[in-house]
Amino acid sequence: MSCEVLALTEELINRQSVTPEDAGCQQLMAEYLAPLGFDIESMVFDDTTNMWARKGASGPVFCFAGHTDVVPSGPAEKWTFPPFTATQHEGQLYGRGAADMKGSLAAMLVATKAFVTKHPEHTGSIAFLITSDEEGPFINGTTRVIDTLEARNEKMTWCLVGEPSSTTLIGDVVKNGRRGSLTGDITVKGVQGHVAYPHLAKNPIHLSAPAFAELAQTHWDNGNASFPPTSFQVSNVNSGTGAGNVIPGDLSACFNFRFSTEVTDKKLIERVTSILDKYDFDYHIDWTFNGQPFLTDSGKLVEATQGAIKDVTGRETELSTAGGTSDGRFIAPTGAQVIELGPVNATIHKIDENVNIKDLAELAKIYEGILQRLLA
Amino acid sequence: MSCEVLALTEELINRQSVTPEDAGCQQLMAEYLAPLGFDIESMVFDDTTNMWARKGASGPVFCFAGHTDVVPSGPAEKWTFPPFTATQHEGQLYGRGAADMKGSLAAMLVATKAFVTKHPEHTGSIAFLITSDEEGPFINGTTRVIDTLEARNEKMTWCLVGEPSSTTLIGDVVKNGRRGSLTGDITVKGVQGHVAYPHLAKNPIHLSAPAFAELAQTHWDNGNASFPPTSFQVSNVNSGTGAGNVIPGDLSACFNFRFSTEVTDKKLIERVTSILDKYDFDYHIDWTFNGQPFLTDSGKLVEATQGAIKDVTGRETELSTAGGTSDGRFIAPTGAQVIELGPVNATIHKIDENVNIKDLAELAKIYEGILQRLLA
Ligand SMILES: [Zn+2]
Ligand SMILES: [Zn+2]
Repeated sequence: MSCEVLALTEELINRQSVTPEDAGCQQLMAEYLAPLGFDIESMVFDDTTNMWARKGASGPVFCFAGHTDVVPSGPAEKWTFPPFTATQHEGQLYGRGAADMKGSLAAMLVATKAFVTKHPEHTGSIAFLITSDEEGPFINGTTRVIDTLEARNEKMTWCLVGEPSSTTLIGDVVKNGRRGSLTGDITVKGVQGHVAYPHLAKNPIHLSAPAFAELAQTHWDNGNASFPPTSFQVSNVNSGTGAGNVIPGDLSACFNFRFSTEVTDKKLIERVTSILDKYDFDYHIDWTFNGQPFLTDSGKLVEATQGAIKDVTGRETELSTAGGTSDGRFIAPTGAQVIELGPVNATIHKIDENVNIKDLAELAKIYEGILQRLLA
Repeated sequence: MSCEVLALTEELINRQSVTPEDAGCQQLMAEYLAPLGFDIESMVFDDTTNMWARKGASGPVFCFAGHTDVVPSGPAEKWTFPPFTATQHEGQLYGRGAADMKGSLAAMLVATKAFVTKHPEHTGSIAFLITSDEEGPFINGTTRVIDTLEARNEKMTWCLVGEPSSTTLIGDVVKNGRRGSLTGDITVKGVQGHVAYPHLAKNPIHLSAPAFAELAQTHWDNGNASFPPTSFQVSNVNSGTGAGNVIPGDLSACFNFRFSTEVTDKKLIERVTSILDKYDFDYHIDWTFNGQPFLTDSGKLVEATQGAIKDVTGRETELSTAGGTSDGRFIAPTGAQVIELGPVNATIHKIDENVNIKDLAELAKIYEGILQRLLA
């Protein structure tokens, strides 16, 4: 089993699937799954290739979710080994996607084969939801597959997303939810003028500075047992003509909320608006809602995952909702229990991305253990 | 006299002297002044042509100061008449530099000729300090001529700068000083990070917002009888990588003070520093000092100017220190009394710059009247 996970991971890394390219990864997965009894459905939306594969017609439905696309390698000459040629070195496997998340995909395949070989008459169904658009704008990926499934009322009970959740040892951390994300693009309107005639101008930097100061200092909530407090960050601010003697006519800024289940996007928009409206200036905000927070705080999926990790590694796993967004945000609203479990994430999106080869074998065993506990 | 001012202004406008080009304007002035008894000294510094012309060896020294360079025309097709071909139309003379300040230069020449013809044995000296670098970076212009004069201890008693000071009628406003100007380029140092992990980053936008808010709201002084209150304006602020999910590593901003004689550049630097130091962030400021405020609040030059304006136009003139900087800031520190008097400034630096033809004749008479009162 260890050999097969490694070989599959290598084959996937060697396919240069920079987002939104799939580069034949899903074909490889389909060819592996079809002989195991899976029905394969390819869903191509614009530039994105997605795959929905399912074995079994009844519930409960256990789904592996993941992505075949990877972020660009950056300058290849900075890599110790070529980014798109899988290379073993001192117990690690190097290559773009090794940890995020081609190793997980390989482990899912191997775990599934081992499980269905041992349990040909398992209960429920096993499915794969695979996209090539997780690292990109995620417009034509998981969200559209979910739309398609929802439209035909096809539901999953449990979903395991293979994102690299571990921090130092395989299985030490599992994500059982994610914070919500809300972005605002604000334009503050002033009146342009010459610095020598300030009474004829309205400086948008001056007008908005106290409002930004208040927003930055605002305490949004306390978080809760599962979520850290909601955080607000201004990521960009730009104003000025470049000339030192001109008062600019407007200011633009971009800010982002990562928010807990203690608030909602509506509530945050209300609070930002009421803070800004205390100050006397014209502004306009374009809001982009990137996803509600979601949480699978308990249930069979969490229990099975914790149990399987304990069996394979002896480790008590930590449930966490920290970090960025994931495709789990598109799946959770369907009612599915969602957790994320994958390799150590220390090198993802970096030069010399790599994964521990033994970890991949353990991950396959953990995935198999989860199937065992839920569907045997 | 009226005809000659107009003809000279036209000849100067037709010389396309976009800063720092002189395009032969000073040669034309020199050829006019030499027969009147002026010694002509051309001072070329790098790309800038300057002229120091003087008639007489004794004090007091009355100096006309001005510039032959003009700002670019902008798109010539937007002009009603070609910008570098002087054109008379309905009592106005059109062309780049008509008001700023080739009309003034012509008026100075004609006034000087009229005065020395009537008073060949006048007291003291008459001088011209002319540069081609007033509209540019003013590095090789008036400031270097002044350095040269100071080095040989050649002083002027009174200096009349021909900048277009009038607002609606010729002579309605005279500048008897200018505010100081001080610029700061600040860099605020943070720590870059991901918006999902704010505890690992330090957001320079958040850190500095309350400090900018305080600076913007600070009352620097009350001004005084001659100066409006000191004003502070942030002209540019930039921070962010462009990505919405990255907390930026630094922020840069540019701000400018226009300050009265109630403070000094040192005092302002001290106060800004003490405000910023109340907040907990790293920053660095590069200061650029653009000139101390100066003021000629009374004296023979002011009296002569007010008297001559009253004689020619019947008008009570207003003394003002408003507006941007001028070359007066380089002359006043030598101890000279400095005032600025020139045509209506409504169209300067704009498309279709123009000057009233009758105003030019009146300006020449006013200039002559000032010479009369000081040196006859
Ligand atoms: Zn990923
Ligand atoms: Zn000028």
